Amino acid sequence: MKTSKFYFLVLGLIFSSIAFTAPGRAVAAGHEAEIAAANAEWTKQYNAGNAAGVTALYTEDAKVLPPNSDIVTGRDGITAVWQGMLDSGAKGVKLNTVEVMGTGDSAVEVGTYEVMDKEGKVIDKGKYIVNWKKVGSSWKLHRDIWNTSMPAPMSEMK
Amino acid sequence: MKTSKFYFLVLGLIFSSIAFTAPGRAVAAGHEAEIAAANAEWTKQYNAGNAAGVTALYTEDAKVLPPNSDIVTGRDGITAVWQGMLDSGAKGVKLNTVEVMGTGDSAVEVGTYEVMDKEGKVIDKGKYIVNWKKVGSSWKLHRDIWNTSMPAPMSEMK
Repeated sequence: MKTSKFYFLVLGLIFSSIAFTAPGRAVAAGHEAEIAAANAEWTKQYNAGNAAGVTALYTEDAKVLPPNSDIVTGRDGITAVWQGMLDSGAKGVKLNTVEVMGTGDSAVEVGTYEVMDKEGKVIDKGKYIVNWKKVGSSWKLHRDIWNTSMPAPMSEMK
Repeated sequence: MKTSKFYFLVLGLIFSSIAFTAPGRAVAAGHEAEIAAANAEWTKQYNAGNAAGVTALYTEDAKVLPPNSDIVTGRDGITAVWQGMLDSGAKGVKLNTVEVMGTGDSAVEVGTYEVMDKEGKVIDKGKYIVNWKKVGSSWKLHRDIWNTSMPAPMSEMK
């Protein structure tokens, strides 16, 4: 009887440990690759000139914080941000992840970016922070902010 | 005997639930107030012209991502960012938290800011994302990025 009680108590503690550590570890192992894949899709959609396709990679209640603009919410508003960038002559974007931190269904990515004109000439370089959120089985951009690394007089988009 | 086994299995499942949910909830309850207090200290130090005092609120391995600059790491580099802002005439900063998300020892804050000159005139308005990290018993700024919300021609600091 004592052995039996001890056995079930140990079983309970093992359950506790699994419940406590598994979600973080399981996601931590896979989320960097999944976020890299989502970033590859981001640049694919943007570089194809598909503003709505970029927006589809964001959560339904995403917020985008572009320079020289208030905080943008809502799918139409976010699509207008990318369309405005495309129309300004920013035809290509390259993203480079510096680090991804976080566990569970939330992650913070720090990265750098390059923006190219239609000839492929780099017209802006900068950095960004994205707060990613896992929605169902997909990592989506939930909060997105960036700024230029170029000197102030050159920071204005052509 | 059957009742006893069932009792210990239920006990185990209760342990699991507590272990799974308690850390997130316990921190979520307190971290907004603690981050608000840290932000109040940030503005207090900045508005007193104490660049090193602002930097002391960051983690040892913090990264700061100022506009028109590469990513800045290290305490001396980060202090130079605030000293540079102070020297440029940005004598006062107001911070306004829009939202704080996250559980455990990591949180993401979205906020807006105002920068004032020495007469208290607003010379810049913008927004920021801070990734906060709990170090010991204190919430510290771990990653910090911001950009202006003012139109491009007015975005250059005087």
